[in-house]
Amino acid sequence: MKNRILLDSATLDLLRLQLTNWEVTPQALKRLYVFSNFSEAWAFMNRVALLAEKHDHHPNWSNVYNRVEITLFTHDRGGVTELDAYMAAEIERMAFGK
Amino acid sequence: MKNRILLDSATLDLLRLQLTNWEVTPQALKRLYVFSNFSEAWAFMNRVALLAEKHDHHPNWSNVYNRVEITLFTHDRGGVTELDAYMAAEIERMAFGK
Amino acid sequence: MKNRILLDSATLDLLRLQLTNWEVTPQALKRLYVFSNFSEAWAFMNRVALLAEKHDHHPNWSNVYNRVEITLFTHDRGGVTELDAYMAAEIERMAFGK
Amino acid sequence: MKNRILLDSATLDLLRLQLTNWEVTPQALKRLYVFSNFSEAWAFMNRVALLAEKHDHHPNWSNVYNRVEITLFTHDRGGVTELDAYMAAEIERMAFGK
Repeated sequence: MKNRILLDSATLDLLRLQLTNWEVTPQALKRLYVFSNFSEAWAFMNRVALLAEKHDHHPNWSNVYNRVEITLFTHDRGGVTELDAYMAAEIERMAFGK
Repeated sequence: MKNRILLDSATLDLLRLQLTNWEVTPQALKRLYVFSNFSEAWAFMNRVALLAEKHDHHPNWSNVYNRVEITLFTHDRGGVTELDAYMAAEIERMAFGK
Repeated sequence: MKNRILLDSATLDLLRLQLTNWEVTPQALKRLYVFSNFSEAWAFMNRVALLAEKHDHHPNWSNVYNRVEITLFTHDRGGVTELDAYMAAEIERMAFGK
Repeated sequence: MKNRILLDSATLDLLRLQLTNWEVTPQALKRLYVFSNFSEAWAFMNRVALLAEKHDHHPNWSNVYNRVEITLFTHDRGGVTELDAYMAAEIERMAFGK
C-alpha cells in the first residue's frame, strides 16, 4: 500500500472502516489530534516528520499548542493514493505511542 | 520586550519598520517562510519549538514541505503583545540561521 | 526541586528509592533507555530537548538507533543538584509517554 | 555512493582529502561539531535524524549543549562503507546550513 495510485471508491469505503477517526474523501484524508500539551504534540510531529521524509511524501499540517491537524493527499495525482492511506495508518499508530 | 501587554498603535507602527516581511496588525503577527526543502524547514521549526516552550507561548503555525506559515498573538489578551513582538524578532533571526 | 543546590547524601539515598532505574551517585544521574526503534527514541529525545531548553539545563546524552543514554549533573556545582533530580523525574515520565 | 560496501584504502585516502575535518579510519568516520548554542545544535541534529531515518542508517552520536559528536560506520560490515561516506558529506553540508 505505498504506490502513488489514486484509490477507487470501493477502496475509499474500506478505508473509512479502518480510519474511523479520519475524514475520508477522494480529495484528502484529514484528522485532528489533541494531546495533553505541546511536548506530546511535538514528539508526535517529529515521528510524522521522519515518516514523511522517508517516503518523500509530506503532509499539509498545522499545530497550535496541543492540537495537530493533518491533511494527506498526493498533489500530482490530485487526490488520495495508496501512499496516503499507508501514511494515515502509520500516523494513527504513532499518535498512540506505538 | 517579553510581557503579555497589548501593543499600542505607535508601537505597532514601529514594529512594522522592524519586521518588514511580517504582516503586522493589532490582532496578529504573520509571516510565511519558504525554505529549500523539508529538512531546512523542519530544522527551523525545531528551533521555534524550543523558543515557544521556553516562553510557554506557542505559535499557530502550518507547514507543507518547504513552507512554514507562522501566526503569533496572545490568546488571553486578544491581540499582539510584547511577547509576540519578541518572538517574531527571534524567529526572524532563526530563519536565517543565526 | 528546581534549584542548583548540591544534594546531600540523605537526599541522594531518597532519590535512589524514587529513580530505581537510574544510576545515582553524588557526581551524576545516569540512565539508559531502550526503545523499539529510532522513531520512538527520537520522539522521546525531542521532549527532553524542550525540557532542557526550558530550564537552560542540558543533558550529556548519546544515541544510537533505539538506545538513548542520559547523564545529568550540574557542571558549575560539580555534582548532582535539585535541578538534576527534577529533570530525571520528568525525563522518566516522558520516556513512558506520560 | 550509497551502497553498504566497505571502502578500500585508496578510496579512504581520497575521502581524507574531501572530509578535511573528519577523522577517517577504516573503522569509522568521526567529527565534532561546535555550534553557538543548543538551539543551533538541535536544529542540525534534526536534519541528521531525517537523513538517517531516510537511509535507515543511524549514527552513533552524542550531544552536550552546543557540541555534537558524530561517528559513522556500518555495523554489519565492520567498518566504513560508501553509505557512511555519503552520509558524512551530507552531514557536513547540513552543518553549514546548506
